[in-house]
Amino acid sequence: MLLYHDPGAPNPRRVRIFAAEKGIPLETIEVSIAAGAHLKPEFRAKNPLRLLPVLELEDGRVLRESMAICRYLEELYPEPNLFGADPWERAQVEMWNRHAELELLLPIAQAFRNGHPFYKDKIKQAPEFASIMKEVVLDRFAWMNHELTSREYLVGNRFTVADITALCAVDFGKPSGIRIDPELHPNFKRWYDLVKARPSAKA
Amino acid sequence: MLLYHDPGAPNPRRVRIFAAEKGIPLETIEVSIAAGAHLKPEFRAKNPLRLLPVLELEDGRVLRESMAICRYLEELYPEPNLFGADPWERAQVEMWNRHAELELLLPIAQAFRNGHPFYKDKIKQAPEFASIMKEVVLDRFAWMNHELTSREYLVGNRFTVADITALCAVDFGKPSGIRIDPELHPNFKRWYDLVKARPSAKA
Repeated sequence: MLLYHDPGAPNPRRVRIFAAEKGIPLETIEVSIAAGAHLKPEFRAKNPLRLLPVLELEDGRVLRESMAICRYLEELYPEPNLFGADPWERAQVEMWNRHAELELLLPIAQAFRNGHPFYKDKIKQAPEFASIMKEVVLDRFAWMNHELTSREYLVGNRFTVADITALCAVDFGKPSGIRIDPELHPNFKRWYDLVKARPSAKA
Repeated sequence: MLLYHDPGAPNPRRVRIFAAEKGIPLETIEVSIAAGAHLKPEFRAKNPLRLLPVLELEDGRVLRESMAICRYLEELYPEPNLFGADPWERAQVEMWNRHAELELLLPIAQAFRNGHPFYKDKIKQAPEFASIMKEVVLDRFAWMNHELTSREYLVGNRFTVADITALCAVDFGKPSGIRIDPELHPNFKRWYDLVKARPSAKA
C-alpha cells in the first residue's frame, strides 16, 4: 500500500503514527504542499479535493481521509486495536477522537490557515478568525487539562487513535505559537510527554 | 435511551434521522440553544463543551458527539447497516461521511456562526470568514454535483450515514442563503430530492 503524504502536515502524520503503532509497512510518496505538488493534475486525479493523505491499494483503488484510512487499516490489522475493543469502548474512542479533531486539530488548523504567512497569497485568509480560534484552543487546552486530572490517556488508561489525533493537533500548534503551558496545564503536559515519547511519534 | 437535542440544530438531527432509519425508539428532551439552555449547569454536567446532541443511557452513562452516538447505535442495532457491510464499503462510507462533514457541514456551520445575526452578541464572529466559507461551499456543491453524475447516493446505490450528514448540511445552509441551484447542480438536486423524500428526513 502506498501513502501519499507531506511530512509536515498533521493529517498524513495521523496515518503514519497509526501504521507505526501496528507495525504496518506503508510505502510513502511525498506530495509537497509548500511546492504546490498537491495542486498538480497527477495528484488531483487521486484526490480532486487536493488534500492529503491518500492511500493507494495495489489494485489502484484510492482511499482519501485520514480516519477512513486508519479505520481501513484497523480492519486489515485488528490488533493492537486503536479504535476500542467493545461497543462502549469504541464509542468512547470515537467521542474522544472527534473531540481531539473538532476541538483541537480543526481550530489549530484554522488558526494556521487564516493567520500564518505560509498561506498568504495561497488562499483567502481571515486573520480575525485566526485570533478567535487561538482563544478557543486555549480554552480547550484548559478543558483537556481538567479531563486528564484522573487518567493517563484520553480514553482510560491506554493509548488509542484519539491520542494520535490530539498529539498531531498539539504539535501543529507550534507554527502558530500555540503551546501547552506546563504551569497552566500540567496534566495535559504530562499526557503530551507520555505520547510524544512513543517511538511512533517520530513516524 | 434519552437524546438531548435541539430540533433546529444539524448535529442532533443526524442522530434522529439515523435512529428513524433503523426504527430505534429514542426518548428526546429539548435543550434550546436559542434560549441558552445548553449553557445552564444542568446541561453542562452532561456536556462541558455545551454541545448537542448527548445520549444518556438507562444507567446514567452519557455519550457525546453525533457520530459516536450513531456508531454506538449501529453496534446495538446492526441492521439495516448505515456504516457499510464490509471493510472496503465501511472505508468508503467513512470517507464520504467525512467529506460531507468537513466539506459541507463544517463550512456551512461556520458561515452561520460567523455571519448570521443569531450568533451576534452570543459569540465572537468573523464575518469575513463567513464569506470565505460561502465561496468554499459553492465550490463543494459543484464538486458534489460532478460526483453524483453516475450514482444515486454518496456511496454507490444505497442510502448510508454519509447521505444523512450531507442532507443535514444542505438544509442547514438555508438560514445563510446557501441553496442548491437546480440549474447549476442538477445531479446534486436529484440526490437531495431523493433523500429529503425519505420519511426519516422529518425525524
